[in-house]
Amino acid sequence: MYRSHTNGELRLANVNNEVTLAGWVQKVRDKGFMIWVDLRDRYGITQLIFDEERTPKEIMEQAKSLGREFVIQVKGTVIERQSKNKNIETGEVEILVSQLTILNKSLTPPFTIEDDTDGGEDIRMKYRYLDIRRNPVKDNLIFRHKVTMEVRKYLSEEGFIEVETPYLIKSTPEGARDFVVPSRMNEGQFYALPQSPQTFKQLLMVGGMDKYFQIVKCFRDEDLRADRQPEFTQIDCEMAFIEQEDILTIFEGLTRHLLKEINEVEVAKFPRMLYDDAMRLYGNDKPDIRFGMEFGELNEVAQHKDFKVFNSAELVVGIAVPNGASYTRKEIDKLIDWVRRPQVGALGMVYVKCNDDGTYKSSVDKFYNQDDLAKWAEKTGAKSGDLICILSGETNKVRAQLSALRMELAERLGLRNPKVFAPLWIVDFPLLELDEETGHYHAMHHPFTSPKPGQLELLDSKPGEVKANAYDLVLNGNEIGGGSIRIHDKKTQEIMLRHLGFSDEDAKAQFGFLMDAFEYGAPPHGGLAFGLDRLVSILGGQETIRDFIAFPKNNSGRDVMIDAPAPIDNEQLTELNLKLDLKTN
Amino acid sequence: MYRSHTNGELRLANVNNEVTLAGWVQKVRDKGFMIWVDLRDRYGITQLIFDEERTPKEIMEQAKSLGREFVIQVKGTVIERQSKNKNIETGEVEILVSQLTILNKSLTPPFTIEDDTDGGEDIRMKYRYLDIRRNPVKDNLIFRHKVTMEVRKYLSEEGFIEVETPYLIKSTPEGARDFVVPSRMNEGQFYALPQSPQTFKQLLMVGGMDKYFQIVKCFRDEDLRADRQPEFTQIDCEMAFIEQEDILTIFEGLTRHLLKEINEVEVAKFPRMLYDDAMRLYGNDKPDIRFGMEFGELNEVAQHKDFKVFNSAELVVGIAVPNGASYTRKEIDKLIDWVRRPQVGALGMVYVKCNDDGTYKSSVDKFYNQDDLAKWAEKTGAKSGDLICILSGETNKVRAQLSALRMELAERLGLRNPKVFAPLWIVDFPLLELDEETGHYHAMHHPFTSPKPGQLELLDSKPGEVKANAYDLVLNGNEIGGGSIRIHDKKTQEIMLRHLGFSDEDAKAQFGFLMDAFEYGAPPHGGLAFGLDRLVSILGGQETIRDFIAFPKNNSGRDVMIDAPAPIDNEQLTELNLKLDLKTN
Repeated sequence: MYRSHTNGELRLANVNNEVTLAGWVQKVRDKGFMIWVDLRDRYGITQLIFDEERTPKEIMEQAKSLGREFVIQVKGTVIERQSKNKNIETGEVEILVSQLTILNKSLTPPFTIEDDTDGGEDIRMKYRYLDIRRNPVKDNLIFRHKVTMEVRKYLSEEGFIEVETPYLIKSTPEGARDFVVPSRMNEGQFYALPQSPQTFKQLLMVGGMDKYFQIVKCFRDEDLRADRQPEFTQIDCEMAFIEQEDILTIFEGLTRHLLKEINEVEVAKFPRMLYDDAMRLYGNDKPDIRFGMEFGELNEVAQHKDFKVFNSAELVVGIAVPNGASYTRKEIDKLIDWVRRPQVGALGMVYVKCNDDGTYKSSVDKFYNQDDLAKWAEKTGAKSGDLICILSGETNKVRAQLSALRMELAERLGLRNPKVFAPLWIVDFPLLELDEETGHYHAMHHPFTSPKPGQLELLDSKPGEVKANAYDLVLNGNEIGGGSIRIHDKKTQEIMLRHLGFSDEDAKAQFGFLMDAFEYGAPPHGGLAFGLDRLVSILGGQETIRDFIAFPKNNSGRDVMIDAPAPIDNEQLTELNLKLDLKTN
Repeated sequence: MYRSHTNGELRLANVNNEVTLAGWVQKVRDKGFMIWVDLRDRYGITQLIFDEERTPKEIMEQAKSLGREFVIQVKGTVIERQSKNKNIETGEVEILVSQLTILNKSLTPPFTIEDDTDGGEDIRMKYRYLDIRRNPVKDNLIFRHKVTMEVRKYLSEEGFIEVETPYLIKSTPEGARDFVVPSRMNEGQFYALPQSPQTFKQLLMVGGMDKYFQIVKCFRDEDLRADRQPEFTQIDCEMAFIEQEDILTIFEGLTRHLLKEINEVEVAKFPRMLYDDAMRLYGNDKPDIRFGMEFGELNEVAQHKDFKVFNSAELVVGIAVPNGASYTRKEIDKLIDWVRRPQVGALGMVYVKCNDDGTYKSSVDKFYNQDDLAKWAEKTGAKSGDLICILSGETNKVRAQLSALRMELAERLGLRNPKVFAPLWIVDFPLLELDEETGHYHAMHHPFTSPKPGQLELLDSKPGEVKANAYDLVLNGNEIGGGSIRIHDKKTQEIMLRHLGFSDEDAKAQFGFLMDAFEYGAPPHGGLAFGLDRLVSILGGQETIRDFIAFPKNNSGRDVMIDAPAPIDNEQLTELNLKLDLKTN
């Protein structure tokens, strides 16, 4: 061992101890006759002192040669510091060094290893191993470990068994694209990397494992959006002989446990909201309920007047912005510009100022009188001093637009406090979702989700109205988990796949093994998966999942540190029975 | 919830309770007026009783329709059993059923769901979800979970942080073949699946994580031998600022913890053996020391007589088989046939019977007298009643042959007791290994292993003699873990890669990121990885790792249950910029 103590360990009680420390040189302050060095490791920083009177000359010289990030080992005596540093736990002591060994030198790092670094994202990713030395990144990784340990402890104590499912499986184009892996031994054939262990966890239920979980990597070959990773981690869970209520109870328990153990926050029973209500009240299936600003639908009170924009709209809907009546014309114009940005896509915005004197001033005073506007205020819950923002148009679109505005305003108003945790369940998701481009319905959750009892019959007549035993767990405006009760009989699964456009042949080729399994005594079962990266980042009070991943990829799916992906040898390709077929050159 | 209790839970104390149970029909015994059903789930078996006098007629009828592996739910009353079954924990009670629901029917399973099944390996793999219902498989998976939980608890308490490293990395042909993953977004480029997180864990040490572990899947595209899997699991560990002694101490601690917690076995300090001694005494770098039969080298006492076979041999070496002197001529001939099998490859075997009267009878009495043979007995530790088996030839080959014979004999003699645990460390492995086919040296452990201090200079003159700071943990004749102290400076790593035949260009392309990292203050570090599949199977007292994997692949790397790998769509190939280039048709 290169050390007797870590750099986070020594206290006044250790004064006069002879110790050996090792770590990185964080900082050197050289006053000529006296040199201080901050020595850093994962556990903290300890100050070393070298001085002309007490330190041998050659060691003084050596100390003067130290650069940032040099790796050194020192032996010395713990002494009490003259000027104590209350900001660090070792701040009452320092080490009078009697022996110094340079274990490894360092080039000058390309950015400072400080909490607030001068390095930009790109350079920090390229030198991620240096970035990890910084407290914010290091602490996030340790935090992630703490969360996964608590998850495992909790589920294990609840009788769940962690079972490893295979990574080399079969390509089943059920949503996103699969990453595939050519098989050398099986010519012309490919494995796929799992988008999730979905079918395997269901087979484990058929196999009687009863309660399964796994913290597991999943893979999706998607065109990456910001903060999406081609490989991500799930807390994947499944239970047999349960109903939806049991799943909600156990995973609410897990989430509450994490909030308590990790964040020291006690949360009451999680509210539940129907999917339809979430869409109606927040325009969104993952509402942030740390603040109000619920939607007020205004069709009844705003249509059938002379304002054509509203009359022709499928939905007229508004929110009340607390204390927004004081916004200047310029500020409101900026808001209007904001909702008209292509990313939001509204055509315009109607607003109503709710004056302190109980009167209203709107951008559509030409069409509406004070009584009309009073009704709008009532529907949106606006009080004196508030501003009502109203959008109109096609229901789905206008909901998405107003939801974006609601979140933006909340952000600006400081209503999204990362220390406040507001979980809720969204239940009764639709089974199917219409793809507006193709006109086809596809599974909103996945093809194994069970429709609500008695609704299977609606699949032909009103596919969009069939509700599923599907649920999401939402935390602070983010979906952190989702799941469903599964289909567990072959016939229903066949009907479902047929409705999703699978030919019987394709269904058999891709999911035959699962449907076969359903014929040998499949129990009722269901489950849930948490997105671990997202969960950890929210518990950590941050927004960016990349900050909680040791070696993330960039938005082109590249690891810029190791420079992957990369070309491979022709020999390797030949062994795999493959040829490149490049479109560009 | 479909049940109030599991099938492993009810006892005499529950008599008169109204309960709801669910599970699989294990067995139906129909006496006409009375029907017993064994109801099974993960937790046990509970007996259900239906009888003409107490059970409504329609439920009797329903019960008669039940088949094996039907999934049912029953409500009923716990009653005391007339004839108790002491073999199961619920054997004192049974359930008088008042309500029966068939949750799912089952086809007749293709093999019996019993501890001793009538199903062969192939059919059980195809229907693995049914195989998992069997206690031996189910218990193994639960056992595996228990082991990984203990590993995580122990390492976590020792300050190790579990960090997830990426699965989509870069192909670095450093040993076995990589599985590769074509990148759609980066035309003509490929990711590789990790053979191990080796370089990433070293970067984590450069990054100051100090103590890292991960239970992680690794991938090797090898021609599969029996009981090898293309994907396997490692307990991967790394520490900074440590020396070999620290690693041995901490992972000996982990292993001892597992033996104690999982197997309830207390093991003393693990013996350590030099690699050279292991090869000399057991012909093997993973000796099973649950029994003796150490090698006795006989060159000194067997050469320079008239027996040409021995005179021309590089090594003459024997073992004493306890009580083998009683073997008949026929039995010994069979042993000779055994060592001459192509899998072993010896040309012949010389033997000496150590008679009870102190005399010797050998197959080479023509060349050696009683005094000569007495020396052989001394060298091999043979006692009266033993049989000495002697092989000769080229050192490496003859050691491997005699080692195989030693293990075979121990197996036959019942000396490999799976309840006895004999761990040991093998240390001071050679740094390099000669590939006899190519005449090149390659890294015995991997290219990042550090040579022993002061031995770097020998690399040019005597590469085969350079020893490494490398060690294996051996348990009952199996390597369960291995590791090394790593190189942590760029210059040594460059020298090492050059000696392994990498051009400077290749070295930079493949490991440039690691060598760059070494220039920014890399601490001394080292680590170890356990093969989890193997570790679990040995702790579980079994030999076959496949029995401890939920969904293993067969020897052609296929998952016969889901039928993977499989062809993929041309469209998918085109998106990946690939064409098939098949050799056969």
